[in-house]
Amino acid sequence: MKKVYVGIGALIEKDEKYLIVKRSPMKDFSANSWEIITGRLEIDEQPEQGVLREVKEETNFDVEITLPLNTGFFYRGENFPMVFIIYWCKYVRGELLLNWEHSEYKWLTLVEAIDNPELHVFTSSFKIIQELKKYLPKDFSISKFK
Amino acid sequence: MKKVYVGIGALIEKDEKYLIVKRSPMKDFSANSWEIITGRLEIDEQPEQGVLREVKEETNFDVEITLPLNTGFFYRGENFPMVFIIYWCKYVRGELLLNWEHSEYKWLTLVEAIDNPELHVFTSSFKIIQELKKYLPKDFSISKFK
Repeated sequence: MKKVYVGIGALIEKDEKYLIVKRSPMKDFSANSWEIITGRLEIDEQPEQGVLREVKEETNFDVEITLPLNTGFFYRGENFPMVFIIYWCKYVRGELLLNWEHSEYKWLTLVEAIDNPELHVFTSSFKIIQELKKYLPKDFSISKFK
Repeated sequence: MKKVYVGIGALIEKDEKYLIVKRSPMKDFSANSWEIITGRLEIDEQPEQGVLREVKEETNFDVEITLPLNTGFFYRGENFPMVFIIYWCKYVRGELLLNWEHSEYKWLTLVEAIDNPELHVFTSSFKIIQELKKYLPKDFSISKFK
């Protein structure tokens, strides 16, 4: 097995809505597309710390991690194999401040997110949240057990 | 960010017990220690497919993935940075056949696994399962949504 990059994604929930952001025109990959908050892990970085760091950098939010939800592999570009891990996160505090990486944002309900073809890459993750929300208490978080 | 290896772990549940295995004396890393089923992803491999492949190779079991539970980063050795993803899996079928990688096995309850200091690396993952099992239906699986 060869080495790969590891990317993380954060599905941030606040008041039953989820943050999506539009990639800046300056982005080298997939400019102007709508996505969730994403980023790459640093070497030596615990993945969940990387999620908190990327969310802070890209939104100025402090969040709590509820649970990892979904994983996958794709080529972000030639010679750029990437495993990604998507985490369900809950907003804790902070005022939204986008950095240069994104030009717009929206808050969507789960149904709006699932029905949006521009977010098809994330549809299964939104569906998993929709299912988990039927059962889990609102304050569930894996961080209590670590 | 540099590239890393990606390892997967499978916490396999059958009849309310969880499979642990003893690493073979031939293993280059952490020989003779007790662990869960683990492995490394191949390049181009979807992580969840990699879990099913490793479980099949090391136990002969077919399993279903319930949910990813936990993630982390460690050095498996010098120049061997590894991100790992631990999945909760449920036994579906197959007779247990260990391959050369393991010399013994045991089935433990969650309480036994959590109380076992030899499994301290996995304690938080067992605790997350213990908590999730209070809420999720027995047939919960992310594979329905993918």
